[in-house]
Amino acid sequence: MEIFDQIKKYKKEIDGKLLEIYPKGPNSLVEPINYVLNGGGKRLRPILAIFSAISCGGNKHDVMPVALAIEILHNFTLVHDDIMDGDLVRHGQKTVHDKWDEGVAILTGDAMLSLALKLILQSNDHKEKQITLFIEGLLAVCEGQALDKEFETESYVSLNDYLKMIDLKTGYMIGLSAHMGAMSTNADLEICTKLRNYGRFIGRAFQIQDDYLEIFSNHQDMGKSLESDILLGKKTMLMIMALDKNKILIDDAINGAKKDFDRGMLEIRKFINDSGISQYVLNEINKNIELANKEIKDLEINKENLMYFSNLIKMRES
Amino acid sequence: MEIFDQIKKYKKEIDGKLLEIYPKGPNSLVEPINYVLNGGGKRLRPILAIFSAISCGGNKHDVMPVALAIEILHNFTLVHDDIMDGDLVRHGQKTVHDKWDEGVAILTGDAMLSLALKLILQSNDHKEKQITLFIEGLLAVCEGQALDKEFETESYVSLNDYLKMIDLKTGYMIGLSAHMGAMSTNADLEICTKLRNYGRFIGRAFQIQDDYLEIFSNHQDMGKSLESDILLGKKTMLMIMALDKNKILIDDAINGAKKDFDRGMLEIRKFINDSGISQYVLNEINKNIELANKEIKDLEINKENLMYFSNLIKMRES
Repeated sequence: MEIFDQIKKYKKEIDGKLLEIYPKGPNSLVEPINYVLNGGGKRLRPILAIFSAISCGGNKHDVMPVALAIEILHNFTLVHDDIMDGDLVRHGQKTVHDKWDEGVAILTGDAMLSLALKLILQSNDHKEKQITLFIEGLLAVCEGQALDKEFETESYVSLNDYLKMIDLKTGYMIGLSAHMGAMSTNADLEICTKLRNYGRFIGRAFQIQDDYLEIFSNHQDMGKSLESDILLGKKTMLMIMALDKNKILIDDAINGAKKDFDRGMLEIRKFINDSGISQYVLNEINKNIELANKEIKDLEINKENLMYFSNLIKMRES
Repeated sequence: MEIFDQIKKYKKEIDGKLLEIYPKGPNSLVEPINYVLNGGGKRLRPILAIFSAISCGGNKHDVMPVALAIEILHNFTLVHDDIMDGDLVRHGQKTVHDKWDEGVAILTGDAMLSLALKLILQSNDHKEKQITLFIEGLLAVCEGQALDKEFETESYVSLNDYLKMIDLKTGYMIGLSAHMGAMSTNADLEICTKLRNYGRFIGRAFQIQDDYLEIFSNHQDMGKSLESDILLGKKTMLMIMALDKNKILIDDAINGAKKDFDRGMLEIRKFINDSGISQYVLNEINKNIELANKEIKDLEINKENLMYFSNLIKMRES
């Protein structure tokens, strides 16, 4: 089967299995949890976990609980982050705190986290190591989100601090997806470490892309509301560089966007293009994809689907 | 050393150790997490875990990570519940979402949960069983809180449903405190099970007392704002019974309390006293304490401190 078709098949299987996880409980949890898990998304993290396991000679069945757990953890962060950021749309549908209320959304996230943790305990081998990594990942994600929120109100953030933040917020869990996938196959330490590093570089590329798409994509393609990020003053790679080059112009454009969003965005886009920031950022994305591929280049595993995965990330437009 | 002095000593030690857990990280996490962990509280759950371990011949050192983890989980639920309930005071100080904001409070809770989970992984024996129980406890607490919130808007809740809710929201974790304490000493299954049941009955008594104190105590003694619970329509044992006996009078009194809180409360108190509900509830508390003690009566462990603990709960006035 072609890798493209495999991905479609895995995604369908993941989508189905996610809906079997919490069929019974208080209505105010069952409904929003299944609403979130039925809400779509690219399922990149679980697919990476499966690809990583298969590359190491493992099978889908053994890695599935871990793959699902990572996807649920990811969705837990989305539910809570959307409250914090005041986002009203996610994967093209209303966010939980908007459809229900904040209390429901907080509790939905908390319960999803416990469901994710329970799944890790279903994995067969290396349970203790897997759960340890997963819990460290949870703390990393919280710390990354905390830094992201802190940066919103800081007038200057260095690119280095930004990279540290996205490594925690995004890179850690994508690295973990590859790492835990390999671990489910009893792969040795070197392979696990290299695959984790592969995932971390992919994660960096992915987050920088997100930053890029936020400025340049059609919002509907992204399936989420992007206005809030700009208006909150989120420090993305593009905005950090733009503020560094011309703080007065960019602050003015953000203030302008509060009144007329499209016009403010047009100014920001123009500056980012004209000043060469967009080209720099696109290069950074490609650089991180190459660094990812380099990590696994010499590993004696079947790399075909991972190389395909890197390329998929590189080419994504939403 | 007298048991009373032991408790004071343990509490001081727990208070101190809680402040060593998260010294470094993003400021927007370090500050509120240490604010919460420095906020006091009776530390009943970790003390019960230590007592349970010592009753079974274990020592404080081995049970400490588990004891601290349970206390942190408990505080995680308080931080998130206070957002949901709009409570502004906890342990006599401002709640996190009031002192900072809701985003900080959500993330503070999430990160505290990961710190609690990390602590469980520090326990020496039975790590996998301990973490499994802990994660089940987390889901139970979420489900209990979900039911509690659902009940607020229901016009009728049965006493049976109420008991199911408090068993999840409060009883499960107090049962787990005793259970995990015993487990840290390699106690056999019968002892673990009986101690868990002991804790669950104590948890029931404790929650029903909370309900009682909400109506009858001086608010300052409780160190939290109680008005919100009444005004939100929380279904406590007393309110369920009062609504069952005279829904019109109680609904009127709650509505009255929205305008003049003290006067509305006076009416509710008078009805609960005159109708015999307060006596029934006090009997229920004692009954559950007795059921707790009965669970461990025939166990060949050193029960002295557990019996003291039961009595402490029975006698508490705040």
